[in-house]
Amino acid sequence: MASSQKLLTDEEEVLAVNRTFYTALHTLDMSLMAQVWSHEDWVKCLHPGWDLLLGWDEVQGSWEEIFRSTDQMMVSISRPLVHVARDVAWISCLENVTTAYHNDFSSALVEATNIFQRCQGRWLLVHHHTTPLAQPPPDANAPVQ
Amino acid sequence: MASSQKLLTDEEEVLAVNRTFYTALHTLDMSLMAQVWSHEDWVKCLHPGWDLLLGWDEVQGSWEEIFRSTDQMMVSISRPLVHVARDVAWISCLENVTTAYHNDFSSALVEATNIFQRCQGRWLLVHHHTTPLAQPPPDANAPVQ
Repeated sequence: MASSQKLLTDEEEVLAVNRTFYTALHTLDMSLMAQVWSHEDWVKCLHPGWDLLLGWDEVQGSWEEIFRSTDQMMVSISRPLVHVARDVAWISCLENVTTAYHNDFSSALVEATNIFQRCQGRWLLVHHHTTPLAQPPPDANAPVQ
Repeated sequence: MASSQKLLTDEEEVLAVNRTFYTALHTLDMSLMAQVWSHEDWVKCLHPGWDLLLGWDEVQGSWEEIFRSTDQMMVSISRPLVHVARDVAWISCLENVTTAYHNDFSSALVEATNIFQRCQGRWLLVHHHTTPLAQPPPDANAPVQ
């Protein structure tokens, strides 16, 4: 039992860091975002519609750019699936993202893979890969615009 | 030096399994595909345009369906970036995929994250996440079809 309890604790720790990452996104908090990421030059990030970013400098710059051009972001996550393998863990989750910018807004359902590595007892995000999913077709009974 | 040499060897091993995965894809070889994947019920796979698949049974079924409906697939990968953390490793790479099916074909540039776990000395694929990238706009000087 001790072993499975320990695994459960690791999973809960990783899920908590994952929630903190989405809190940083939701609140456009660059300081919090910097806390959850590893600052290594090999971390990677794929934002929807972007090319792959390599290294903390590029990743940090991308969040700064996204936060600058965003008035408000609402993010809720669902179906987090976590797997821990000693000091590496990864989570698959669905992001429900609504973004307000330039007097307009967009909504997206995004499948994410987030990889975390435990460094000196702290789980840090080292890889963030997102895929916008196809939206369900609009309600056929809805009035035509 | 011994440590970095060992890491390099791990990286080469993971890159080799990654190549084998794409060989299985290219040759539509279900037996080879089954060899490179872990058969655990927590492995995950996101094909372009699909929802997330969970567990080897679902993943295996998806490859069987893809291979059944595909006449030929050409896959080349570029820019493989590998990171090894003891018994877990992940690769980011670009897939150049051309698929022939039903007297038609399609081409796609896909960003992939592949996570591998070392089980009893063998690196096995445990997570495959793909994102089709936006294609460059067609040549403006090309004749209109």
